[in-house]
Amino acid sequence: MTNSEDYISTKRIETLVDGIFAISMTLMVLSIQLPDPMGDWTNPMVWNVLSGQLTNIIIYAYTFIILTSFWIGHHRGFNRVKRADNNFLWLNMIWLLFVALVPFSTSLAGDFGNTTPAALFFNSNLFLIGLFSFLIRRQVIIKELSDESYEESSSKLIFPAIFPLLALVAITLSFFIPSWSYFPYLLVPLFIRVLQHKQNKAK
Amino acid sequence: MTNSEDYISTKRIETLVDGIFAISMTLMVLSIQLPDPMGDWTNPMVWNVLSGQLTNIIIYAYTFIILTSFWIGHHRGFNRVKRADNNFLWLNMIWLLFVALVPFSTSLAGDFGNTTPAALFFNSNLFLIGLFSFLIRRQVIIKELSDESYEESSSKLIFPAIFPLLALVAITLSFFIPSWSYFPYLLVPLFIRVLQHKQNKAK
Amino acid sequence: MTNSEDYISTKRIETLVDGIFAISMTLMVLSIQLPDPMGDWTNPMVWNVLSGQLTNIIIYAYTFIILTSFWIGHHRGFNRVKRADNNFLWLNMIWLLFVALVPFSTSLAGDFGNTTPAALFFNSNLFLIGLFSFLIRRQVIIKELSDESYEESSSKLIFPAIFPLLALVAITLSFFIPSWSYFPYLLVPLFIRVLQHKQNKAK
Amino acid sequence: MTNSEDYISTKRIETLVDGIFAISMTLMVLSIQLPDPMGDWTNPMVWNVLSGQLTNIIIYAYTFIILTSFWIGHHRGFNRVKRADNNFLWLNMIWLLFVALVPFSTSLAGDFGNTTPAALFFNSNLFLIGLFSFLIRRQVIIKELSDESYEESSSKLIFPAIFPLLALVAITLSFFIPSWSYFPYLLVPLFIRVLQHKQNKAK
Repeated sequence: MTNSEDYISTKRIETLVDGIFAISMTLMVLSIQLPDPMGDWTNPMVWNVLSGQLTNIIIYAYTFIILTSFWIGHHRGFNRVKRADNNFLWLNMIWLLFVALVPFSTSLAGDFGNTTPAALFFNSNLFLIGLFSFLIRRQVIIKELSDESYEESSSKLIFPAIFPLLALVAITLSFFIPSWSYFPYLLVPLFIRVLQHKQNKAK
Repeated sequence: MTNSEDYISTKRIETLVDGIFAISMTLMVLSIQLPDPMGDWTNPMVWNVLSGQLTNIIIYAYTFIILTSFWIGHHRGFNRVKRADNNFLWLNMIWLLFVALVPFSTSLAGDFGNTTPAALFFNSNLFLIGLFSFLIRRQVIIKELSDESYEESSSKLIFPAIFPLLALVAITLSFFIPSWSYFPYLLVPLFIRVLQHKQNKAK
Repeated sequence: MTNSEDYISTKRIETLVDGIFAISMTLMVLSIQLPDPMGDWTNPMVWNVLSGQLTNIIIYAYTFIILTSFWIGHHRGFNRVKRADNNFLWLNMIWLLFVALVPFSTSLAGDFGNTTPAALFFNSNLFLIGLFSFLIRRQVIIKELSDESYEESSSKLIFPAIFPLLALVAITLSFFIPSWSYFPYLLVPLFIRVLQHKQNKAK
Repeated sequence: MTNSEDYISTKRIETLVDGIFAISMTLMVLSIQLPDPMGDWTNPMVWNVLSGQLTNIIIYAYTFIILTSFWIGHHRGFNRVKRADNNFLWLNMIWLLFVALVPFSTSLAGDFGNTTPAALFFNSNLFLIGLFSFLIRRQVIIKELSDESYEESSSKLIFPAIFPLLALVAITLSFFIPSWSYFPYLLVPLFIRVLQHKQNKAK
């Protein structure tokens, strides 16, 4: 905050990243809500409550897995980062700002998921997480902050671009069929597989 | 997320496991609820509020201890894991997904515990945590990820199977006498003792 | 969970302790509540809201400092612990169970603090935290888990006994003048000073 | 808690600082609230909900960035601290008490931001965080707890003073034009730049 020459160790950033991911992933569960327990509740009534929260439960599991993928991707990339410059640090913090916003987006999508504004907010949030993941990786490559060679790492930059591109598709879908806009992310593993196959062939 | 050959250190997974356990164990307390404090409250009225939350408080303590056992078991197993493959990593993440769901299940069981759907949800959640605990241990053994010998470790695989088996009993009880379905887990320490005695004798 | 001979490192316990303290200390803030912001709010109305939450804010700060003292005391004691046996581990976990309950007790005391049941619950919670702090320290001494000599450490056992003893006074007060039952803890630093003075003199 | 001669490692304090920052930054998101999802919600209705929460979302992002700056500043300063005395420890804990209060202040400012009491509470909270940040740094310098020379570090003490001074301006503004009182903090980077320029020239 005061002297841009002092450095901040990557280990400290990792601790904050782990903390904010752990909390966001756990806070999401608060979006699954229960009614006031006063009065007599019969089995069918509680079944109704649970099935009414089904969308929230599915969105919880779905977003948990997406956040997990980002966390894994981040640590795989971070593993080889040897030093952190100021831009790298702030890219990480803005990224975390959008990660910590996920419990709200999840809650919004779970409650009003079939409306355009809710779908748009949720998908934009994921887009921004994906975009900053990409920018962090790009910063590592262009400033050569890691111990990988430039050639080795730059060829990998296409992978973190897959998610934000699919998020753009999801954002577009939000305007036309909001309830379908949550699915494009399911294609991520497929795209990764295809690209890996292509890169291996090119060698 | 991008390259399945990069590894992720077991230390990073431990940090996330510790974080999600700490938060889930603490968030559970939010399931104990208080009424609006507006107006005049006399001693008997507040006694009523507290005794109305007694089930929630007991479930909180009960689940806290169950989660503790899993956390201890996980660390005892993890202690000797030397490397993590991709399956091992994802088994851990799905396991955490169900651990982070516990504050919701606890809240549900505390509020509607004498109905079948609430008991079923709670016990299924514990079953899935137990099942993935078992699968994680099994993965460590069959892929020889730890420094233990195959014989030594495979003979221990029966211990993590106790909990999911008792959870199946609990799930069955949920359909007939939901309020009794929370108790089978109390038999876990007994079964462990009996099995340890038997194994020591066999040597 | 399965084999009582496997050990669990004290470092892992420290991580969970730090996590649960950090979360409990932060979750307490949720006990300070705000009304629905709908409608027109004038300055005097918001002043009223804030002054209505004054007790909650004071209890938050007060409990934050008490938890801090326990956290510092725990780490000072833990610093020299070299190995953890099973009893030591479980004493720590039960202790954490009561620490994680604090956000609820705080909320109860903030809302219904001038009634006996609320004061009794709050003070009993603090008593149990103090008692287990004492039992943990005692376990370290009688099982010689630390690198201190028995004489050196056993003479210090009187310090962790101060808090639970004062909590017993607070519990007694809860029955007669609940609103005054929160104050005995303020005597802790005084007692520590007097005892330190006495011990130094005895040498 | 018992013996002021025992030391507490700076590493332990760092863990608690990281934990409380991660949780406060994530809990802030709970101040963005959603209505009961019962009934039929059309796109314009959900747009209204979201735009009604716009202030809360902006305050969330704004405070997230302010907390980030403090976290970075703290770690930059902490990096060189070699030992912690008792005063240093307690200054850190009181500082954390005000950091953990931020989710409440944010919620208050988001809901009632155009009233004097809300603006005053929010700005006083930030002032106290800034003040204790300054006092921590000052303690490090006057007690020579770090490995920097006294001359080198004391010349830097002006930087952590910028934030609390601007917070005093914000507090004053709270009485006259509350809705404008949130902006003085935007001048922090400007002041830092000017002072750095001046110090470099002086050399």
